[in-house]
Amino acid sequence: MKSDRPLILISNDDGVEARGLYHLIDCVKDLGDIVAVAPASHCSGQSSAITVDRILRVTKHNDYCGAKIYSVTGTPVDCVKLAMHAIVDRKPDLMLSGINHGSNAGNSIIYSGTMGAALEACMMGIPSIGYSFLSYESNADFSPSSPYIKEITGKVLESGLPADICLNVNIPVDNIKGIKMARAARGYWTEEYADYLDPIGRKFYMLTGHFCNLEPDCDETDIYWLNQQYVTIVPAHADMTAGDYITDLANLLGV
Amino acid sequence: MKSDRPLILISNDDGVEARGLYHLIDCVKDLGDIVAVAPASHCSGQSSAITVDRILRVTKHNDYCGAKIYSVTGTPVDCVKLAMHAIVDRKPDLMLSGINHGSNAGNSIIYSGTMGAALEACMMGIPSIGYSFLSYESNADFSPSSPYIKEITGKVLESGLPADICLNVNIPVDNIKGIKMARAARGYWTEEYADYLDPIGRKFYMLTGHFCNLEPDCDETDIYWLNQQYVTIVPAHADMTAGDYITDLANLLGV
Repeated sequence: MKSDRPLILISNDDGVEARGLYHLIDCVKDLGDIVAVAPASHCSGQSSAITVDRILRVTKHNDYCGAKIYSVTGTPVDCVKLAMHAIVDRKPDLMLSGINHGSNAGNSIIYSGTMGAALEACMMGIPSIGYSFLSYESNADFSPSSPYIKEITGKVLESGLPADICLNVNIPVDNIKGIKMARAARGYWTEEYADYLDPIGRKFYMLTGHFCNLEPDCDETDIYWLNQQYVTIVPAHADMTAGDYITDLANLLGV
Repeated sequence: MKSDRPLILISNDDGVEARGLYHLIDCVKDLGDIVAVAPASHCSGQSSAITVDRILRVTKHNDYCGAKIYSVTGTPVDCVKLAMHAIVDRKPDLMLSGINHGSNAGNSIIYSGTMGAALEACMMGIPSIGYSFLSYESNADFSPSSPYIKEITGKVLESGLPADICLNVNIPVDNIKGIKMARAARGYWTEEYADYLDPIGRKFYMLTGHFCNLEPDCDETDIYWLNQQYVTIVPAHADMTAGDYITDLANLLGV
């Protein structure tokens, strides 16, 4: 049975069991028909990774509040690609990713599986939004994010987005004052590994570290406004070409 | 013993056994002290993925032509991060990634582990270059790429690169006519999966497909010039903010 309602494809990087996925579905279920295709297991930090050398399987789960739920044994990008190949029967009107358990502000976007999925949909010409919540707790109270998710999703569903642009939306945990457009704060990660010795004395490492914001006082940036309790929206694109530098580099390199 | 020669860190996404890694070392070994830190296994399509939930181990391999060789049980980005944490004793003067067995032109950069490693070094303030060769053959003849790798690497070592910019260099397999600066061609992948049935009748999928170039006749793009047998250099940056759209989107979304 065909529906006249908009089709909204949802994915995430925390996996099909993550509470954030079902919170996002709860927020937008009145706006359209929902198909969620999420990784079978946790895929944080998977960026735009694709599975090239292993097979992928799709599993149908029980519906949730009218939303169809599937899992894929791969990455967030695999989920979007395979949704289009094997699951949905028409092009989605909108793709949403998240809500992520944890921030994807600053340059975290480049590591983010949440945004990997959103950027993939964007490259397919589907308006897309990645939502992230500034708590890593699996039992976080997502409710403060609800009105903002509904508002931003509704506006994008109504107005669309410019071609090749998707949105990276980060949401504070409480006392939210409003919404700001911003650019990603520049910075880097430091003290990145914890060092261990295994029982027979061999070293191993686990990722840790913290983000050093290089521009903490700049009111153009997402992290500045998140620290002031604002929801931030960063427009993002998949094209990583630094077009402004082509001429200068041609001179520098003598080509 | 400290060296006065530049320190060149090398990684790749095809893994520590890949011939492309040793070809790249051969090309640049006279330009500095080489430390190669490569994934223990094949990591094509790993983008900027990081390992967040598993341990990482480092293995020292035999030197190759004076270059120190290590493998890491993770992604290309893990290799760069862990090289800085646990392997090199000074900041590298240059980071090289590759040479990749296969193209990273057009929007393939977003999936590329080769470029994931280069972008990671770039974010650390290390001038970096990703090299890719337009043959997927494991036994490809890389020799036509040698003079171009030497020339481009030498110039970047001498002149540096603008802050936050790295280079995505793609090299045709033969009959090379010269070097062109370009931007990434816009396009998308289509017919992306092969469908299978397993012995008990359940579906599974494997990634395949081909790239549809949306601007085949545009002489600003890398794929146009690669098709004309030119080496292409695309300046790339890790910041995915689409800064030109911030004001328009603030109006569109009413924020």
